[in-house]
Parts: sequence; C-alpha cells; structure tokens
Amino acid sequence: MSNQHRLDHTPFIVPPEKKIRLADYDPGYTAGFKNKKEGKKALKHDVKDLAVAQELLWASKQYAVLIIFQAMDAAGKDGTIKHVMTGVNPQGVDVYSFKAPTEEEKQFHFLMRPMRKLPAHGRINIFNRSYYEEVLVVRVHPNFLESQWMPRRLHGASLEEIWQARYESINAFEQMVANQDTLTLKFFLHVSKEEQLRRFMARLETPGKEWKFSIGDYKERQYWDDYQQAFEDMLNATSTEIAPWYVIPADNKWFMRSAVADIIANRIQELDLQPPTVPPERMKELEAMRHTLAKELGE
Amino acid sequence: MSNQHRLDHTPFIVPPEKKIRLADYDPGYTAGFKNKKEGKKALKHDVKDLAVAQELLWASKQYAVLIIFQAMDAAGKDGTIKHVMTGVNPQGVDVYSFKAPTEEEKQFHFLMRPMRKLPAHGRINIFNRSYYEEVLVVRVHPNFLESQWMPRRLHGASLEEIWQARYESINAFEQMVANQDTLTLKFFLHVSKEEQLRRFMARLETPGKEWKFSIGDYKERQYWDDYQQAFEDMLNATSTEIAPWYVIPADNKWFMRSAVADIIANRIQELDLQPPTVPPERMKELEAMRHTLAKELGE
Repeated sequence: MSNQHRLDHTPFIVPPEKKIRLADYDPGYTAGFKNKKEGKKALKHDVKDLAVAQELLWASKQYAVLIIFQAMDAAGKDGTIKHVMTGVNPQGVDVYSFKAPTEEEKQFHFLMRPMRKLPAHGRINIFNRSYYEEVLVVRVHPNFLESQWMPRRLHGASLEEIWQARYESINAFEQMVANQDTLTLKFFLHVSKEEQLRRFMARLETPGKEWKFSIGDYKERQYWDDYQQAFEDMLNATSTEIAPWYVIPADNKWFMRSAVADIIANRIQELDLQPPTVPPERMKELEAMRHTLAKELGE
Repeated sequence: MSNQHRLDHTPFIVPPEKKIRLADYDPGYTAGFKNKKEGKKALKHDVKDLAVAQELLWASKQYAVLIIFQAMDAAGKDGTIKHVMTGVNPQGVDVYSFKAPTEEEKQFHFLMRPMRKLPAHGRINIFNRSYYEEVLVVRVHPNFLESQWMPRRLHGASLEEIWQARYESINAFEQMVANQDTLTLKFFLHVSKEEQLRRFMARLETPGKEWKFSIGDYKERQYWDDYQQAFEDMLNATSTEIAPWYVIPADNKWFMRSAVADIIANRIQELDLQPPTVPPERMKELEAMRHTLAKELGE
C-alpha cells in the first residue's frame, strides 16, 4: 500500500474545536493536482488501496466502517459512490439510500432508522443521504415536523431548540457507534451554485438523459441560501474527533472522487488492522490435519 | 456490448424436461479456452459488459435479478462473487449470506427468509447459499428438521415426501418471483472431490491463511456422496424454464469465474431493457425549463 499519492486531508476536515464558514471553502479547489488525468490516476491507486484495506477489514472482523454522504442535488453523491466503491468486493459493502421516511418510520425517533442499518464488524455501510436530512431538508421545510413524532421534552420548544436537540442526539449516537469500534466518515460534497445549474442544464441537454432531470430538484434550488446555512450549522455542531466532517470540493468531479477515495482508503489503513492469527494450540491441531490430508492426497 | 467472447451456455444448463446425472458433468471442463490467460481476458470483458448491463437495469427499474450460488465447501462461491461482481456499482447490488437460520427464522416456512431479501426492480441480489440449503444440508442431516416448524399437512410424512414438498414449494416460489419480472439465475459450482481436498490443503499450507481452514468443513466432506445425491436430485427437481440451474465446472477457478460472468452478463443483456423515456408532454415542460436555466446561466 503506497502512500505517495496521499493528499493532505487537513484542508477538508471541519475542526471540532472552532467554527468554520462554508463560504471559506472553495468548491473549485483541486489541491496539488495539475490536471484531471493526474486526479484519475490517483483515484485508480486509491481504489486499489481501498480494495486491499477492505479485505483486511473483512478478514479481521474487528472494525466496522460507516460512510455518510450529504450534499446539494447534483453535487455527485451517486457518481462518487459508484467510482470510489466499484472495485471493492460487494460482499462486504452495503449502500442505503435514505429516501423520505415512511409513515411508520416517522413514529420513531429519527435515529432509529440508521440504528437498524449500522455495519456489522468487518463491513462497510454507506449512507447515501442519512439521518442528517433531519437537520437539513426538515430545517429548510420545518412543516415536515408536523407529521413526525416528537419527544415530550421538546413539546412547545422553538425550532432553534429542536435543531440543537437533534445535533446533541446525533453526537451521542455517533459516540455510541464509535464505542463499538465503528469508524464514521462524513462527507459533505460542496458544489457551487453555478456548477449545480450547469449540471442540471447538462441533464436537459444530453439526448437520452432528460429523464434524469427533476423539476423538484430545480425548485429546491430556490432555497439555496437556507440550505447553505443549514449545512454550515450542521458542520459546526456535529464535526467531532470521533466522527469528523470532510468538506469535499465538488465542482470538479474527478477531484471530488479522488479526494473521497484517498480519505477512505487512508483512514481504514490507519486502523492498523491485523489479519486473524491462529493460537499455538490450534496450530498443533491444524498440523495433525495436514498429515491426515496429505495421506488422503496420497502424498 | 460485444458478444465475441460469448460462451455456449448449453453444456451448463440443466434441461428442465429430462433427468441429468451429476457424474456426467466434468468439473475440469474449460470449453474452448486454450489457457488461464484467455479465460481471464474473457472475464475482464464480461465484467465490463455486466457493469453496463447493470446500469441499464438500474436506470430502467423494470426488472430485478436474483442470483443464487450453491456448492460444496471450497468450490469458490466467495471468490466467484468477488471476481464477477467487483466492478459493478455496489449501490445496485446486495449480497446475502444464508448462514444457519436463527431460532426465530426456524418458526417460519423456510421460504420466508428469501422472501424478505428479494431484489427490488432495478437491483441485483445475490444469495451466497440460499433456501436450497433446506434440501441440501438438511437432507444430509435430517435431524435438523426436529427444531423446525413443519406445515400440518407434512406431519407424519416420510423424509422423501418432505423433500418433494420442498421442491414443489420452491418451484411455486420461483414462479411467483418470475411473475414480478425478476430473472432468477442459479449456479451450482461443481468441484471434484480431489480438488476440494487440494484446496483444503492449500489453506493449511499457506502461511498466514491457516485461519481459513475449518475442521468442520473437512468433517462435512465425509458426507460427500450424500451431498452429490442431494445436489443431483435438487438440480433435477428445480431446474425450470423460468429459473434454470447452471452446473459450472469449478476445478479451474479462472474458468468458473469467466463462465459465471458470461452467463450473468448475457442473460441480463437478453432482457433487452430500454432506458427510461420521457413522454412528449413532459418533453415540452423540460424544453421550457431549459429556457429558464439558460436565462439563469446568462446564455
């Protein structure tokens, strides 16, 4: 596992101890990469490293990995998941898309949904959108709260108090997840308002791809500033040592994919997992088996 | 999607209309492939075709695909799933390993487990072992039946009647699955008794891989002939037009993987799926959107 292509991850991490402003992050940033070709080459290396890291994760069964993607529409969540995770043994990976909750799900605490989809040790689970929607789309459209169950202590609370309570619940949840040796990585794919428009337009203008365009997505774009504020507050409230947020520049798809792959591969490598070992007494037993098998093989 | 590497699948299909003998299938068969290198090249092509076919499956949301793997231990189920499916977008694929049923699961009809894991339209689900274990491991060890719920009509039935009833239930289940436009492909990875022994030995003899050896697997080998009989009867009773069994020669891993990839890729291609289309009235709406966006982009 070579590290020559390791990016400096510092510019992407939202520091737990201080407040950031989303406006300070450039969606067009491409680190030291000279061009797309270089980025694609790095991605290829990282995907290979990730495949190796995942095999060790699977064999050792000691850790689990939870990867969360959040972004504005058309930032490239699906494409990033596809390009980063294709190449990893699908037997060890599950991807869950968090669509709007069902009526039944709305009668539970919003953290019950992810609770049921946590990765078992040895596995990588990916949340394409996640419980963070509860402080994003629901914050931008607070009328969604009307059909949701609400803890008694929040009856009569202000909206501000509700979001604060949700941030705290999320941090407690992620602490519990970390306690059971699960590495949580959270990616905010940061696209600019102009680039989003260009991508919507590309869908409309590419023959055969028109069906990918959603008028709903375009309407949601009218709430751009509200979303940016919701993302900024979410990043500041829920980036922690045990589950940091990474803000990934998303205006260049090749850079976004490469950065995400590099971070995932390196963070799993840093767990320093060891393949399973066989205790000495078991080794003796296996040695006896070897003789039995050798005889059966006529050796 | 080129077909130049298409294998003749006929030798692998268990014909629904007549009885086969497993002994007539050569586990060392390699079709027209001259060598391993040629097989690996074909696999690479097929994996690419499969990735394209899966994208169309995903986009069209019309069909689902269910792939079942059954085999003796060490035949290569995990490796085949890994090599054939790595390269396909994991967002559209789920792999379920059917371990021994839980106490709760044993209180349901044995087809309730797979029922809950059927693929949604647009998706590929893979069963690594499956409900077929109920006419394989349970047939070889019929004492497993003692802790299972049994339909009233089978109380006091002979073992032979129980397996027959299960075959019939399975065929009815797979008909229902087919009715909801799900393509079911069933692979029996056919390894020889000698090759199994060599693979067990390889695990014991490879430093660092000893933990992969299971004494339980070796013990199960003592029931080889019972298993072969159970497989043969299963193949004859449950290979149907809508859900055929493929017997894949498994003594050469490279051939097995290549054959499985070729069959899956081609069978999905044969569904002749079409990308989603946009109806004319919707196209008009999108044309209006395009003007709105162009204005916003300052074009």
